[in-house]
Amino acid sequence: MGVSHEEAFLDDWSALSAFGAVAGTTGVDRQAATEPDGEQRRWLDALLTSEGFTVHRDAIGNQFALCELVPGAPYVLTGSHLDSQPTAGRFDGAYGVLASAHAAIRTACSLRETGEATRNIAVVNWFNEEGSRFKPSMMGSSVFTGKLSLEDALATVDRHGVTVREALEGIGERGDAVAPEVASYLEIHVEQGRAMAENGITIGLVEATWGAHKFEIRVTGEQAHSGSALMRDRRDALLAASRLVVAARDLVERFPEGMLHTAVGELHVYPNSPVVVASEARLLLDLRSESAEVLAAATAALMAEMERIAAKDRVGIEIVAEHAWDRNPYGEAGLALARSVASEMGLPHARVLTIAGHDSTNMKDIAPTVMLFVPSVDGVSHNVNEYTTDADLLAGVEATTEVLRRLVCGALS
Amino acid sequence: MGVSHEEAFLDDWSALSAFGAVAGTTGVDRQAATEPDGEQRRWLDALLTSEGFTVHRDAIGNQFALCELVPGAPYVLTGSHLDSQPTAGRFDGAYGVLASAHAAIRTACSLRETGEATRNIAVVNWFNEEGSRFKPSMMGSSVFTGKLSLEDALATVDRHGVTVREALEGIGERGDAVAPEVASYLEIHVEQGRAMAENGITIGLVEATWGAHKFEIRVTGEQAHSGSALMRDRRDALLAASRLVVAARDLVERFPEGMLHTAVGELHVYPNSPVVVASEARLLLDLRSESAEVLAAATAALMAEMERIAAKDRVGIEIVAEHAWDRNPYGEAGLALARSVASEMGLPHARVLTIAGHDSTNMKDIAPTVMLFVPSVDGVSHNVNEYTTDADLLAGVEATTEVLRRLVCGALS
Repeated sequence: MGVSHEEAFLDDWSALSAFGAVAGTTGVDRQAATEPDGEQRRWLDALLTSEGFTVHRDAIGNQFALCELVPGAPYVLTGSHLDSQPTAGRFDGAYGVLASAHAAIRTACSLRETGEATRNIAVVNWFNEEGSRFKPSMMGSSVFTGKLSLEDALATVDRHGVTVREALEGIGERGDAVAPEVASYLEIHVEQGRAMAENGITIGLVEATWGAHKFEIRVTGEQAHSGSALMRDRRDALLAASRLVVAARDLVERFPEGMLHTAVGELHVYPNSPVVVASEARLLLDLRSESAEVLAAATAALMAEMERIAAKDRVGIEIVAEHAWDRNPYGEAGLALARSVASEMGLPHARVLTIAGHDSTNMKDIAPTVMLFVPSVDGVSHNVNEYTTDADLLAGVEATTEVLRRLVCGALS
Repeated sequence: MGVSHEEAFLDDWSALSAFGAVAGTTGVDRQAATEPDGEQRRWLDALLTSEGFTVHRDAIGNQFALCELVPGAPYVLTGSHLDSQPTAGRFDGAYGVLASAHAAIRTACSLRETGEATRNIAVVNWFNEEGSRFKPSMMGSSVFTGKLSLEDALATVDRHGVTVREALEGIGERGDAVAPEVASYLEIHVEQGRAMAENGITIGLVEATWGAHKFEIRVTGEQAHSGSALMRDRRDALLAASRLVVAARDLVERFPEGMLHTAVGELHVYPNSPVVVASEARLLLDLRSESAEVLAAATAALMAEMERIAAKDRVGIEIVAEHAWDRNPYGEAGLALARSVASEMGLPHARVLTIAGHDSTNMKDIAPTVMLFVPSVDGVSHNVNEYTTDADLLAGVEATTEVLRRLVCGALS
């Protein structure tokens, strides 16, 4: 008697969670193209190869495991990303890749001899979704969908000057495979919020991504002795950057609760020396809202704050780069398919929004797409304590398997 | 006909200023025990060796150039530090070392045959006064004066985990010389403020160092997804650290102008990733005042701000280390000696305070000490545009030479 689907998934989940494990926690640290990322990629390769899939990498390190059921037919892609933030949870994208792998193995087995399949199957592990080591995030799916040039992506450097090309070649994960022709795309992910867990929803049917306006900001002051320079003579870039961090948080209070999220996650200071007034600070400041009106009003208010702070601290504040998108809907046909699967399986479900971006945010622009969520306890995300129950993980695998089966049999064609 | 003292000094000054020159500026970047620091040290060694001095390094990399005029007598030490902040001015400590070297060469020549000398002469280049690469600052003179243990200093690491021991050995500047016995100490430095330049003072007679209270602070929050986590759930270490930076600046306004200087020069954020709420921030926050009462009141106010911010942002704020000193006077005998020299030379002079610490701050606690300043145009310091006129540089060399001559002939014994 073999192991059940459930046991097989949980065994593999335990094995996958060991790569890049952070000592003393249940979390992981496996940023894009680091050694732990290489290890988990080779493990995934072995898992799917042993099930008869053929594994390729493309030039930006996306990993595709192909199973041809219908010679010459296009592929249903299903997957997410294995890379993580530093000291992050083990679920995030990794759950979606493994759920897709198990769904693909089961679907391939069940359809290999029935003749129902009209599509082929490909499991995908997108390169560098997180964007912590190399910017921008969602790099692999952005190149795949033509939103980012391959050359620009490969030339991107990390903080130590290592390029994406060098890092991928360093772990042996840069390939030359031609991307499979895409019929449709399916992704499952943990929610990264706590609404589903609190409302008893097992399967989230993702209907849209929040709008966002992201700014890379450079503050330019002037180096000075931080002890002896007169206070009124200083042009302190760190002080002005700090006022921006506080201003971004204060913006939230101008709108109804939950309508605006703001953050500064990254701040670099130069020269960052104990007795030197900083001459430069660079920060990444994000505004996010489900409402285009709120996002526009918050952006305008931020611009006013930037002017006020620049004048007060006699520094330059410059937007080096910005990237904005509106509330971004998923296709209704995909939502209907997912709803009918969840409903027929008796899984509590609801339409949900995603605040975070996902690789499906790119993929839905080039192919019919289904995006599913499972709950996350307390919504803990990008944190070693991220947690989803086994029951919810397994329910998500079941839903993914059935949606995948229907897609391979021609749904959303 | 040989070159004049003035031409000789300015030629050497030009040569010294080339080490670690920052392209496109008149500044330098030669942090402690980096390659440019090694180069300038070898150059100083050659300069003084060619004049008959014997050059040694001690175990913490302090460089001593000895000239024995009176066998067995103790030494008058004169010097400062050659290391710089990142992208700093070329004057700072380097001027004091070169002024001392020229003063020592001239004094040795003039006294070698007269029999007036009762002391020997040593030029000193203290290791790592700046503290930018390795903390704490004034490392070499702190070890020399017994305020810091040699073992602790050698084990200190930079941001890349390189120890002081490794860095010094890497540039071949760790020695085993026994420190010379000290009779007295003389240092000259640029002011790092603009009061002297604005008031027409050529020679500053340093009477005291401002008091200071320096804090290394750790803010502890919790990693979260910086997009999707609810704002009210966040415990953002960068936000709280930013409030501390602003609070430190705001403290200044509670006291009469010029009575309190505050700064945060260094801030490190973890994980410092674009879509992660920071779980930790570390900052160096300094308060400085000439008044003990102001310093105490500012310290109390800062503690209250820390409590308020910790409660508001639900983070931990912990003082990891602190270091405080009161207004710290120089000896009156040294001041009187310096005043009589400046007066007899017809150089405009006045008693001044130093806000910044210097190696003489350490040395005055173990030996009679004279600390001189020359003016700095606009007080620009720790900045590539730092500037002192040739006339002031040369006046400082003259004053240093005459004070040194008197010390070697027994003044302050």
